Amino acid sequence: MDAFLAAAIEQAQKGLNEGGIPIGSVLVHQGNIIGAGHNRRVQQGSSILHGEMDALENAGRHPARVYKESVLYTTLSPCAMCSGAILLYGIPKVIIGENQTFMGEETLLRSRGVELEVVQDPTCVQLMQDFIRQHPELWNEDIGE
Amino acid sequence: MDAFLAAAIEQAQKGLNEGGIPIGSVLVHQGNIIGAGHNRRVQQGSSILHGEMDALENAGRHPARVYKESVLYTTLSPCAMCSGAILLYGIPKVIIGENQTFMGEETLLRSRGVELEVVQDPTCVQLMQDFIRQHPELWNEDIGE
Repeated sequence: MDAFLAAAIEQAQKGLNEGGIPIGSVLVHQGNIIGAGHNRRVQQGSSILHGEMDALENAGRHPARVYKESVLYTTLSPCAMCSGAILLYGIPKVIIGENQTFMGEETLLRSRGVELEVVQDPTCVQLMQDFIRQHPELWNEDIGE
Repeated sequence: MDAFLAAAIEQAQKGLNEGGIPIGSVLVHQGNIIGAGHNRRVQQGSSILHGEMDALENAGRHPARVYKESVLYTTLSPCAMCSGAILLYGIPKVIIGENQTFMGEETLLRSRGVELEVVQDPTCVQLMQDFIRQHPELWNEDIGE
């Protein structure tokens, strides 16, 4: 498996071990991970720290150029908020672990020229399927449903 | 002036006094402010704490119902990230201080059924005009340009 997707999955599993929602993400700039993160709704009582947002936040402040040379890896199809962050910073490419358990704003992202690659990785699918079955209320809260 | 827009402007001025980007926001649920915030890029080295995101974060975790009964006030037209957060949580109405210095994703929001009201408040415009003139590089970083 792609080492960066593996790093995103590692983040998702870290989140699960903390009692959180198992979604992870890494921001990769020219072959180096500059930010790694996972969903922290449960751990920090956060409504904005989805996996992708946490990875962006942990990457710190960067000029626009850096984002435009980066690839974002995420274990799950990005929701409207995370897709908006991708558009704000002009991240040109997103590798998505899976979109079977949740379909995010892929149509919007593609319409704005973002390149998407959906892996349908079985580990990513299993992590979400198990979590949604066990904590449907937490999952609904996370996606505003 | 609307007391909630005034509260958002107070947040923007607080941010300015802290050396930050003067954009503020409040989330109002059934007539009560449940979250207030301002841009914290400078103060916390944050790439995701725009004013609206900070207000959402400070509001804490809520079930979907609460967001769907809320109005978001922001001193500046919401960027793609903040607009995405509005869509994720299904916030039905956004009151925008101004969109003269920056035009956010208003077309996208309206196309998804979000009601927008643009006030063109002179204080909001002045805060941003002064800041952009004095710190163009910070402003460009904040909007990914």
